[in-house]
Amino acid sequence: MRIAVDGMGGDHAPQEVVAGTIQAVNEYGVNVVITGPKEKIEAELAKYQFDKTKVEILDAREVISLDEAPVIALRRKKDSSLRRAFDLVREGKADAVVSAGSTGALLAGGLLIIGRIKGIDRAALAALIPGKNGRFMVIDLGANADVKPYNLVEFARMGRVYFESVLGFVKPKVGLINIGAEEEKGNELTKEAYQLLKADTTINFIGNVEPREVTDGDVQILVCDGFTGNTILKMYEGVVKNLMSMIKEAMMSTTRGKVGGLLVKPSLKEFMAKHDYKEEGGAALLGVDGLVIKAHGSSDARAYKNALRQAKKLYDRGFLKIYKENMAKEQ
Amino acid sequence: MRIAVDGMGGDHAPQEVVAGTIQAVNEYGVNVVITGPKEKIEAELAKYQFDKTKVEILDAREVISLDEAPVIALRRKKDSSLRRAFDLVREGKADAVVSAGSTGALLAGGLLIIGRIKGIDRAALAALIPGKNGRFMVIDLGANADVKPYNLVEFARMGRVYFESVLGFVKPKVGLINIGAEEEKGNELTKEAYQLLKADTTINFIGNVEPREVTDGDVQILVCDGFTGNTILKMYEGVVKNLMSMIKEAMMSTTRGKVGGLLVKPSLKEFMAKHDYKEEGGAALLGVDGLVIKAHGSSDARAYKNALRQAKKLYDRGFLKIYKENMAKEQ
Repeated sequence: MRIAVDGMGGDHAPQEVVAGTIQAVNEYGVNVVITGPKEKIEAELAKYQFDKTKVEILDAREVISLDEAPVIALRRKKDSSLRRAFDLVREGKADAVVSAGSTGALLAGGLLIIGRIKGIDRAALAALIPGKNGRFMVIDLGANADVKPYNLVEFARMGRVYFESVLGFVKPKVGLINIGAEEEKGNELTKEAYQLLKADTTINFIGNVEPREVTDGDVQILVCDGFTGNTILKMYEGVVKNLMSMIKEAMMSTTRGKVGGLLVKPSLKEFMAKHDYKEEGGAALLGVDGLVIKAHGSSDARAYKNALRQAKKLYDRGFLKIYKENMAKEQ
Repeated sequence: MRIAVDGMGGDHAPQEVVAGTIQAVNEYGVNVVITGPKEKIEAELAKYQFDKTKVEILDAREVISLDEAPVIALRRKKDSSLRRAFDLVREGKADAVVSAGSTGALLAGGLLIIGRIKGIDRAALAALIPGKNGRFMVIDLGANADVKPYNLVEFARMGRVYFESVLGFVKPKVGLINIGAEEEKGNELTKEAYQLLKADTTINFIGNVEPREVTDGDVQILVCDGFTGNTILKMYEGVVKNLMSMIKEAMMSTTRGKVGGLLVKPSLKEFMAKHDYKEEGGAALLGVDGLVIKAHGSSDARAYKNALRQAKKLYDRGFLKIYKENMAKEQ
């Protein structure tokens, strides 16, 4: 397998990108093409030992920055690290692309360079998130701020194939994120989507899931529009961050708490590591006719490594092929 | 001041309702009318000591349950505890109503029995929530699953008057909950609402606030549609609950952690108490021509007491009067 890695995407590029990519090469044996300014990538590569036959550089002189309009930037900057990485997949020279570029740029790359799977209306971002009782997947995490009810059915089907093929899950539960447990609750979108999901015999739809229960991890696939999914994801991040910092502060305000804090530190650290989104690597852009993994903008080497691992998993388990076969059966 | 208390609303009615109401009578000196089956309310009242001239019972033989269609239930059950409480406000016999009934029933009561303030398009639920650096208010928390962009401007104005009149805040900051910091980000609703909020000279609009930053508490008033607001609120509840339970579990898995856990317990307890939504009492239904406080369905005596305190504060600080004066000026 060959993965195209956007060497200049994310806050810590190219250092952390290259570091994580090499870790993935050494641990998982993947082949990679890193796109970006040759001399910069070479300088980073010089720091590590690895099988030289597995790593290539594709020189790319431009970078797409976060404040650029994604579609325009992607069209104009033909020599950008992100565009070059997507081109490799389109040309069949790579099997997957990993980038920590902006959501907009990755979405544009997925839709305009690689293209949607035939028959799919909307591509969506999906990530595995650690919950209390297991991992769950929220689709869409922000690729589509506004969607039509039917799109949520597509998301559910993509999620099902992901859980079945990549994770080996049997009949994963599908829930509709909604502000009320009852069928008639919600906004116009969720009310209509509920009926469509209920009528779909290809998925194991269990009804509405309130945001309060999302992080329980009892329902594997949670579908929603991208605005809601992004809100869920960012609330989770923000609340965990603030809560941990406030708890720390509360403990440090008394001597007793300080001593206790030192004692519980290893447990908390282990806990935080287990619930770190970096473990999962990134979000997959599902619905495009290629494997696209979006790493978090603030990714470090470990997050990049895991993003490559995720790409490899999707490839090894034949996610795309199985999904397309399923689609053919459904029609 | 006289507060109508729905004696049968919430999971722990009438015990906790009566207990909290009497605490409020004794601590804040408010007068109350408790609606509900006379004999049940009397049996609860018999447990406490209080100034008999301050407490009345209004016999009401029916109860609106959570699974009833709110509008129909409110119209048909004229002798329900909730309907009776709202009637008291409409007839001018009470200055506020406090209930832990369903959001739908309270909304129906506010809109159909009391009625909107003239010129207001949508009433909205707003609550003060403890954040890292201060309290913040999310409007709307779930009264309107779908809204028009202009409604968010109304919500912002109501929030401003709340912070200025009730909390004595000068120029509270108003933020639009959105999935991106930049002006052009978001869905159709937030993109349009951004422009309207920016153009409104009566509020201190500071731009978009990402869900990740909501619980920082740096922006006082956060406006959004009710679906998003409810999602934010329920994610906060769910993540805090799950995180605390997971942290506890992590600590209890080692001896060292157990000892440390015992030592940090008082700090964590104090922390949880400070960040307990029950401290704030409930959500206010803003935009109706009367004071309506919705207590959480799972409210205990303390939550009811605080809900009554909140009603008293809104009354004492002249929230409704000031809001209407402001509206007249704006037009």
